[in-house]
Amino acid sequence: MCQLLGMNCNAPTDICFSFQGFRMRGGHTDEHKDGWGIAFFEGRGCRLFLDPKPSAHSPVADLVRDYPIHSLNVIAHIRKATRGSVALENTHPFMRELWGRYWIFAHNGTLKDFGPTPGDRYRPVGQTDSEQAFCYLLQSLCERFHGAEPPGPQLAQALREITSEIAVHGDFNYLLSNGKYLFAYCATKLHYIVREAPFKTAHLMDQDITIDFSEVTTPNDCVAVVATEPLTDNETWTAMAPGQFLQFHNGKPLTERRLLRSGYSRS
Amino acid sequence: MCQLLGMNCNAPTDICFSFQGFRMRGGHTDEHKDGWGIAFFEGRGCRLFLDPKPSAHSPVADLVRDYPIHSLNVIAHIRKATRGSVALENTHPFMRELWGRYWIFAHNGTLKDFGPTPGDRYRPVGQTDSEQAFCYLLQSLCERFHGAEPPGPQLAQALREITSEIAVHGDFNYLLSNGKYLFAYCATKLHYIVREAPFKTAHLMDQDITIDFSEVTTPNDCVAVVATEPLTDNETWTAMAPGQFLQFHNGKPLTERRLLRSGYSRS
Repeated sequence: MCQLLGMNCNAPTDICFSFQGFRMRGGHTDEHKDGWGIAFFEGRGCRLFLDPKPSAHSPVADLVRDYPIHSLNVIAHIRKATRGSVALENTHPFMRELWGRYWIFAHNGTLKDFGPTPGDRYRPVGQTDSEQAFCYLLQSLCERFHGAEPPGPQLAQALREITSEIAVHGDFNYLLSNGKYLFAYCATKLHYIVREAPFKTAHLMDQDITIDFSEVTTPNDCVAVVATEPLTDNETWTAMAPGQFLQFHNGKPLTERRLLRSGYSRS
Repeated sequence: MCQLLGMNCNAPTDICFSFQGFRMRGGHTDEHKDGWGIAFFEGRGCRLFLDPKPSAHSPVADLVRDYPIHSLNVIAHIRKATRGSVALENTHPFMRELWGRYWIFAHNGTLKDFGPTPGDRYRPVGQTDSEQAFCYLLQSLCERFHGAEPPGPQLAQALREITSEIAVHGDFNYLLSNGKYLFAYCATKLHYIVREAPFKTAHLMDQDITIDFSEVTTPNDCVAVVATEPLTDNETWTAMAPGQFLQFHNGKPLTERRLLRSGYSRS
């Protein structure tokens, strides 16, 4: 299995604090040492850092910790290989382009008997079930909406439906972003927290590091962090329910009410 | 304008020496300070480091200099913006997937009146003529060969033809790789060197650094380096001719004779 970390904000924010705890689970405080990766959206662009080495000891992870990249949407992953060898091409997150935007995907879990016919547009480069699922997701979006990006509610509804097709094959916890939204699906385990004013201190579980968010934020900031397991031991994280799908925007999950208000109808 | 750097080898090699000279041209010894990037193929996987900061002063470039990544195919680019703002989404090289392989592209030059109808499969994320050209190249390959990757000679022939369509629009020096081959097209300026046994010393133009390649190679190694301008001042670089297209494999350009032997016919 693997672990996931995601961030969605209303103002560009660095993920250095959360990442510093998360990376320790890749070979130091936990066993997810078969590679790691992190993707930062900056405007329409996206930076993807990958390393097949354990994140706890990776020079690339040192760079990410020390070089604050400010982003509205981040997805990170530390891997414990179940399908596909330990190799760069099997290292999450994966990136593709759709409708003139980059899309980033990372998965935690194992899919069984999932072997969709490869589409004509997206093909896996590596051997993981995860990249297969990502290609299937994007290929399915293409087929539903053809050349045009749909509004957020329709996009979320389609993702929810495609996800349910894949999720019958096993554990399909995932994070997905197109730079506008962060989508999170919980099959078995995923937690999130929304940090907003009044900001307080937070203390990492995996390292003895404390941050006072009130010193590094403005009162309008709103930041959602999503992780397989909570990253701090003095804050209240919300456990997502199995089968729950969330669409984060501007640092908060869009609630059913908000989704309904914006034309969303639940299946 | 911009500058290009590429490497193609018969055994995984690090590009630290060449990159150390090249990066200095991004804001130190030359004016290409509007961002930079480098892509390393490792097996089927690909690592792409991008930074909109000048390469001479970039923490990401420090990492690339100090962390030897061994690769058969590398493409790097330092940018002096002509089309598209200084932003991550306009930073070369660009990456897409085709036929289950990553493709990497970087361009030096400016195209005029080049506005192909966006294809249904590849769309630019940023605003550069370069990414437009890359998308057009891949879309055209798709249309010619559909779902199957053609053999090397047919691929090169198709690229040569598609390149000639684009090259009428302006300066189209480029480097392209799918992890198997490095393709180089010279519109106005591109040089290359093939290093093989007996290996000698090389001295950078842009920094006072000398390397003795005989100490860091085996007798069977063969490494081709392609660059807009030569990187060393004590070796003989070959200037490519305007209009020349080369396909590098195993550290050498495939000659006309070799191409003919492998079923290639020149247009």
